[in-house]
Amino acid sequence: MEKLVLIGIGTGNPDHLTLQAIKAMRGADLILIPQKGPDKSDLAGLRHAMLAEHAADVPVAVFDMPKRDVSGGYLAGVDAWHDAIAAAWVAAIATVQDGRGFSRDIRTVALLVWGDPSLYDSTLRIASRLKPAPVVTVVPGVTSMQVLTAGHAIPVNEVGAPFTVTTGRQLRDHGWPAGVDTLVVMLDGECSFGSVQPAGVHIWWGAYVGMAEQVLAEGPLAEMATTIPPLRERLRAEHGWIMDIYVLRRKG
Amino acid sequence: MEKLVLIGIGTGNPDHLTLQAIKAMRGADLILIPQKGPDKSDLAGLRHAMLAEHAADVPVAVFDMPKRDVSGGYLAGVDAWHDAIAAAWVAAIATVQDGRGFSRDIRTVALLVWGDPSLYDSTLRIASRLKPAPVVTVVPGVTSMQVLTAGHAIPVNEVGAPFTVTTGRQLRDHGWPAGVDTLVVMLDGECSFGSVQPAGVHIWWGAYVGMAEQVLAEGPLAEMATTIPPLRERLRAEHGWIMDIYVLRRKG
Repeated sequence: MEKLVLIGIGTGNPDHLTLQAIKAMRGADLILIPQKGPDKSDLAGLRHAMLAEHAADVPVAVFDMPKRDVSGGYLAGVDAWHDAIAAAWVAAIATVQDGRGFSRDIRTVALLVWGDPSLYDSTLRIASRLKPAPVVTVVPGVTSMQVLTAGHAIPVNEVGAPFTVTTGRQLRDHGWPAGVDTLVVMLDGECSFGSVQPAGVHIWWGAYVGMAEQVLAEGPLAEMATTIPPLRERLRAEHGWIMDIYVLRRKG
Repeated sequence: MEKLVLIGIGTGNPDHLTLQAIKAMRGADLILIPQKGPDKSDLAGLRHAMLAEHAADVPVAVFDMPKRDVSGGYLAGVDAWHDAIAAAWVAAIATVQDGRGFSRDIRTVALLVWGDPSLYDSTLRIASRLKPAPVVTVVPGVTSMQVLTAGHAIPVNEVGAPFTVTTGRQLRDHGWPAGVDTLVVMLDGECSFGSVQPAGVHIWWGAYVGMAEQVLAEGPLAEMATTIPPLRERLRAEHGWIMDIYVLRRKG
């Protein structure tokens, strides 16, 4: 492998694909896809459907996603997990290369990355473990943050003002950051908006943004902090999984 | 006009278009495009080329972009400017509707928006002036922030950490925001990274990101703060205009 291409594919709407992403898929000698996991989100299914539609001739190798074990410490556990994923990629490529009847040199390998490889995604960090190091290129993809604000038809920033993108844990542990009136909160499994003083704060929330299951809700946080958690629980029970994101804005 | 669709088109690479954006162009009854301005960036030319390639059958109306006059105060000037742009849209639509031989009902009007309509863009605010209010929908597009980080093949965030998106003016006036080690700086015509204490700070910079003219540079800010400004001046002289963006990251 001389080149590794990380292709952002958006957040579950097949039409989030850019023309650049489609060309990158078609230009690969092999595309690596994680085995469908035990969750119900069927992201692997989406990837296979995209390839069938846009790059049916490109060979695909499936790898098993290793299990993450953070019992010995979070950062060390994530580190070991990333090592294991990189090893799983290499093994999957080797299996294909050794397979009989595979006539193509594998120079360019592509991975289809949920959202955009730059935003709260570990694929770039995993890729940095590969030895010898391939040339890594990135194709940007539509992010959940953009699909959320598009769904609500709002700008993420106020005129000329900054905003902070953060995680649920950061919000719970450190409160509202100084100097910004707008937050985008990602990776929040715990409705951490509940830890915010709600007076003067508005929330724009979305689950499964971009997918057929998309649900949006918005309003004053004072009110939504009590209505979103049960809605979220109901959706999770219904679909077997949930992924959500929100913007908080307070009066400056 | 019953429906206004704001379509993010990315940052100058025609392949930034998503399939969703192409479908939205094709689904419009009319597409509004600003007249090519006096600058050399030829963004109008890019828009026309995209339409010729993907939606050649959809009628186009061109409007003159009003001049901004902030001599009576910045916010008031911007407000009046947005009013004038909304009026220019309405006038351009009316001209087409009144034209002989235009046989199509204009129900859905589309605008092609640089980057993503959610990020430091005023189209949503202009659209909110229209009366009667159309239903406004947004199609996300690849942003300069994503194209910059893709070009450098870096994640924008550190693992689980927040980052702030801000402007050159904010950085100059308020310094490095508290609580974040990563900044994305947009709308900076004045190399405001020069106002930052450079020790331990790395910069990833890009001009014309996504376009054929793209130039990237990165390194310790201590060094780059002296090399980027002359490079930027040279590029501006060469192309007649410049648009740049950067990420700053300090050791936490």
